Amino acid sequence: MKPGQADAFEAAAAQAVAGSRAETGVLHYDLWRETDGERRYVFNELYTDEAAIEAHRGSDHYKAFGMAARDLAAGRPEIHVLSAIDVAD
Amino acid sequence: MKPGQADAFEAAAAQAVAGSRAETGVLHYDLWRETDGERRYVFNELYTDEAAIEAHRGSDHYKAFGMAARDLAAGRPEIHVLSAIDVAD
Repeated sequence: MKPGQADAFEAAAAQAVAGSRAETGVLHYDLWRETDGERRYVFNELYTDEAAIEAHRGSDHYKAFGMAARDLAAGRPEIHVLSAIDVAD
Repeated sequence: MKPGQADAFEAAAAQAVAGSRAETGVLHYDLWRETDGERRYVFNELYTDEAAIEAHRGSDHYKAFGMAARDLAAGRPEIHVLSAIDVAD
């Protein structure tokens, strides 16, 4: 995160979180932040299937957040793809 | 993870997940696994407060899993402490 941009980032993220949770294919869409070190933000997202991921990426709130975050973030997002082994709904 | 130990690890983890979810101070206790690369396992845990974390660490299932995982894992766990910015219950 660029210095001083946390509040703006969280405001933009709140829009993305609300919009994403309303999507039928989204099971989890949560925002966390590291408490120390680089204090990176972490989105934890769970989708019903690949089609739901595609639908999410096509959504207005996803695109709007992508543009906003580009100006606020200090670097590109790091994406880790995980499968749910034992994840509660 | 040491080669060939994924099933044993997931069996031991299932015990820890079940026991942890039964703890009053545990809100989230989920197990994920990277789909590629090192294929690391990721526990995503959310507690009500510091006392709940301490209670968790004192539990029999936590200790039992720690011993089992030590023999199965290829290295020490990497712990990232995050605060919930916008996390659904």
